[in-house]
Amino acid sequence: MGWGDLGVFGEPSKETPNLDQMASEGMLFLDFYTANPLCSPSRAALLTGRLPVRNGFYTTNAHARNAYTPQDIVGGIPDSELLLPELLKKAGYTNKIIGKWHLGHRPQFHPMKHGFDEWFGSPNCHFGPFDNRALPNIPVYRDWEMIGRYYEDFKIDLKTGEANLTQIYLQEALDFISKQQASQQPFFLYWAIDATHAPVYASKHFLGTSQRGLYGDAVREIDDSIGKILKHLQKLGISENTFVFFTSDNGAALISAPKQGGSNGRFLCGKQTTFEGGMREPAIAWWPGHIPAGGVSHQLGNVMDLFTTSLSLAGLQPPSDRQIDGIDLLPAVLQGKLIDRPIFYYRGNEMMAVRVGLYKAHYWTWSNSWEEYSKGVDFCPGQNVSGVTTHTQEEHTTLPLLFHLGRDPGEKYPLSFASDEYQRAMEQISVVVQQHKATMVPGEPQLNVCDKAVMNWSPPGCEKLGKCLKQPKSDPKKCFWPH
Amino acid sequence: MGWGDLGVFGEPSKETPNLDQMASEGMLFLDFYTANPLCSPSRAALLTGRLPVRNGFYTTNAHARNAYTPQDIVGGIPDSELLLPELLKKAGYTNKIIGKWHLGHRPQFHPMKHGFDEWFGSPNCHFGPFDNRALPNIPVYRDWEMIGRYYEDFKIDLKTGEANLTQIYLQEALDFISKQQASQQPFFLYWAIDATHAPVYASKHFLGTSQRGLYGDAVREIDDSIGKILKHLQKLGISENTFVFFTSDNGAALISAPKQGGSNGRFLCGKQTTFEGGMREPAIAWWPGHIPAGGVSHQLGNVMDLFTTSLSLAGLQPPSDRQIDGIDLLPAVLQGKLIDRPIFYYRGNEMMAVRVGLYKAHYWTWSNSWEEYSKGVDFCPGQNVSGVTTHTQEEHTTLPLLFHLGRDPGEKYPLSFASDEYQRAMEQISVVVQQHKATMVPGEPQLNVCDKAVMNWSPPGCEKLGKCLKQPKSDPKKCFWPH
Repeated sequence: MGWGDLGVFGEPSKETPNLDQMASEGMLFLDFYTANPLCSPSRAALLTGRLPVRNGFYTTNAHARNAYTPQDIVGGIPDSELLLPELLKKAGYTNKIIGKWHLGHRPQFHPMKHGFDEWFGSPNCHFGPFDNRALPNIPVYRDWEMIGRYYEDFKIDLKTGEANLTQIYLQEALDFISKQQASQQPFFLYWAIDATHAPVYASKHFLGTSQRGLYGDAVREIDDSIGKILKHLQKLGISENTFVFFTSDNGAALISAPKQGGSNGRFLCGKQTTFEGGMREPAIAWWPGHIPAGGVSHQLGNVMDLFTTSLSLAGLQPPSDRQIDGIDLLPAVLQGKLIDRPIFYYRGNEMMAVRVGLYKAHYWTWSNSWEEYSKGVDFCPGQNVSGVTTHTQEEHTTLPLLFHLGRDPGEKYPLSFASDEYQRAMEQISVVVQQHKATMVPGEPQLNVCDKAVMNWSPPGCEKLGKCLKQPKSDPKKCFWPH
Repeated sequence: MGWGDLGVFGEPSKETPNLDQMASEGMLFLDFYTANPLCSPSRAALLTGRLPVRNGFYTTNAHARNAYTPQDIVGGIPDSELLLPELLKKAGYTNKIIGKWHLGHRPQFHPMKHGFDEWFGSPNCHFGPFDNRALPNIPVYRDWEMIGRYYEDFKIDLKTGEANLTQIYLQEALDFISKQQASQQPFFLYWAIDATHAPVYASKHFLGTSQRGLYGDAVREIDDSIGKILKHLQKLGISENTFVFFTSDNGAALISAPKQGGSNGRFLCGKQTTFEGGMREPAIAWWPGHIPAGGVSHQLGNVMDLFTTSLSLAGLQPPSDRQIDGIDLLPAVLQGKLIDRPIFYYRGNEMMAVRVGLYKAHYWTWSNSWEEYSKGVDFCPGQNVSGVTTHTQEEHTTLPLLFHLGRDPGEKYPLSFASDEYQRAMEQISVVVQQHKATMVPGEPQLNVCDKAVMNWSPPGCEKLGKCLKQPKSDPKKCFWPH
C-alpha cells in the first residue's frame, strides 16, 4: 500500500473507514518511512531494527540495485541477526507471524528458527509462477510444515481476483489473540498480509465494492479486517494493553496501476524508487488510554523504529553489540515529542538520498534504465521531473539535489545551488551523511546468489501431501537485478 | 486553493485543523467541482447558478480560451442575470460580499447593483500593477465608494509577503454576523478572500509558521479565520441556523508553485486546465444539528449548486425563465442521497470534457501552447501524460479520451477504445452530451473586449481621497487570451 491509499491521507474515494477511525482514536504519522523501497529488505529492517545494508538484505551484483527474496534466492536472514521476536521471548512473549515472511525460505531461515513460535503463511511473495507446474508454486506453511501451495490449495482466481486469503489470515489473527488473552500471555503478532501486492485479490464479499477497482476491493477488505482486529481487542478487554501499529513495507507499486496499483498521494514515483512515493508510508499508532486520540505527528519515523519501540514497550533494551538504526518512538507517541534523526534512502549499498528535517538531499537519482523504461517498465507513470526522474544513474555526490519537502513534497523543484538556503541546509546535512558513512559497517550481502535448486520444490511436509517436486541440479549464479 | 491543500484531503503537513474539524462536524464533499478552471467565470457561475457560457463569462476571441476580468475588461455581469443575493432579498436576507467581486468593475457591474447590500473588498484580483503608478492599483471599496487602493493604502509587502488583509476581512465578517444576529435578520455572507492568490500574503502572526512556506502561512491564516467565524456563530447561538459552505473557485495555480502555489493532491495539473487538478475543489458543508457530523459524500457537486441550494434553504424557487445548471444539494447534504448529474468542463465556449458517474470523457485536451510552455508557462509541472497533457489543442470529439476516476483519479490511463467498458460508458455519456449541446443557448460573451480607458482610474470616492487618476483615451480592442 502507499501513503495515499487511506482516506485519512486523501485517497479521493475515502474507502478506509476503519483505518481512518484507527487514526482518529490514535496517532497519525505523516512523515513515516520504510527502510527500503522494496519488500524483503524493508521487512528484514523492521524485524532487526537495522538498515538492510547492515543486516545483509541487499545486493552488490550491480550498482544501486533493488533486490529481494524470490524463490531461487540462496540467501536469507543471517543467524547473527537478532530479530524482534527472539528478543521479546526474553520477556515472555509468544510471537506469531501471519502472512508473508520474506526473509528467506531455506530451512535455516524459517521464522520459527528466528524467534517466532507460530507461523501461518508463505515464505515468499505470492506472485509467480502462477500454477505453472514446471516451477513450484509458493508453499503455505503452518508452523514447521507446508500445508499446501498457492493456486493449488489456496486459490487465487487470476481472472476475477477472488481469493479467500485475507479472511483466512484474519481468522488466524483473531484466534491467536483470543488464545493469548485466555492464557494471559503477552504476545507479538506480525500480521503481514499480501492482498494489495499484485496479483491483487479480495474475497467474494468485497469484490466489486470499491470505486477503485480490484485494488480498492483488496484495500477495503484489509481495512475491514483491521477494524475487526481492533474491535476484537476491545471486546476481549485488552485494547488498553495492546500497542497496535499499521504501516506498509514500500510505496504503492505504480507499475501495477491503475488496475493493481495503489496511490502514493502527491508524492513522486512509487515502489522501487527512493523518491517519496517509494518510501513514505501510511502509519498509525493505536493504544487506547495511552496514545491521545486524534494525534498527528511529524516525527520522522521508520519501520526500524518498531523494533526499538516494541522492545521498549516490553521493558527490554536493544542489543548493544551492534548498530541499531531504529529509535524508540514512545516519546513521540505518548508525549508528542519530536526526536531529531535522519532518514536514509538506499538502493543496494548505495545511499541514494537522505532526509534531515524538512530537507531531502539526493546524492544519486535513478528511476530505472532506459532499456527497461522503453519496454514499458515505469515506476513514475505520468510523472517526469527534468533532472530528477532520471533513466540513467546520475551522481550528485558533490552537489546534491536538494528539496524542501514542506513547500515541495512532490520533489519537483530542486533548490538553487547558489541560494543561501541550499548552503545552510547542505552544511547541516553533510555532517549527518559524513557521520553515517564513517561508521557504516555493511553486512555480508545475502541477495547476490540465485539457484533454481533452492526453490520450494520439497518443503517440509510435502511428502504427507504428495506435493514434493523434483529438485533440479544446483547451478548457483549471480542474481540479475535490473533496477 | 486546491483540493489537496487541506489536511483532511491529505496535505502532507496537515496544517488546517479548523477546516478539518469543520469537515468532522459537517459533510465532506469528495467530488465537488468549480464551473470553470479560472476565477471570474467560476464566481459568476456560483452567483448565477449558471455555466459561464450561459451567463456571458467567457470569450470567443480564440478557440477554447480561459478569460477573466482584469482591469481593462469592458464587460461584466449582465443586468439580465439574476444573482443569488438579488433573489435572497425577496426572503428578507441582508447580503454582504467581503473580498473579491470579480464580476466586472465598471459602475453598472457594482455588486450593490446586483443584490448585495454591503461590500468590503476589491472588484479585481490584487495582482498587478503592484504599485506602478503608470497604471491604477486595484481599489478597495466600502459599499459604493473606494476607500483606498491595494499597495498604497492596503499594504502587501511583496518581499516578505506580509499583509493584514485577511484579518481585516475576518473582522468585517465577524462584525457583519454580529450585526445581523443582533437585528434578527437573516443574512447571506459571501466571504471571498484572496490571500492564497499570487501574490500570496499573510499577516505577521502567521508569517513563517507553516512547513509549506508563504503559501502555507496564507492557508493557515484562512484556516484560523474560518475557525473563528464558526466559533462566532456558535457563540452567538446561531450555528444551528446558519448553513456554511467552504470551497474554492479553481484548482491550485501550480504555475506559482512551490513558493506561491498550492496542491491539487493527486489530481492532474492545476488552475487553467480542465483536468481534475484544475476544477476539483475542496468542499465542506457545515450546519450543526442538521448535517450529520463526519459525513462524506460522493455527490457530484458544483459551485453552481450553492445558488440553488441557498435558494432552497431560504424557501425560494430558482428562476424558471432560464436554464439553471445548479442543483439543490440538500437531499445529498441532509439525507445522504446521491443525485445523478453530469459535470461539464469548459474552456471558453468549448466543452472540453464531461464527467458522468465515475467516468470522465475528454472531447478536447490542451494544457497550453508550445509557445507559452517553452517560455516556462507550465500548468502541469512535473506531470506529463502522453496524449493527455497536450501542448496543441487536440480534438477527440469522435473518439473521446475516457478515464475511470475511481481507479485512475490522476487521469493517467485512458481506457482502451476497443474495450467493452469504453463502449458501454461512452453510450451513456454521448446521450448526456448530446442533450447538453442541443439545449445550449450561449449568452453574449462579456470577456471579448479590453480597453485601458475602463481601468480603475477614478472609482467613485477617489476625489475625497485625492486618488483619482487621469483616464486615457478609449481604445477598445479584442482582449488577448493566451490559453
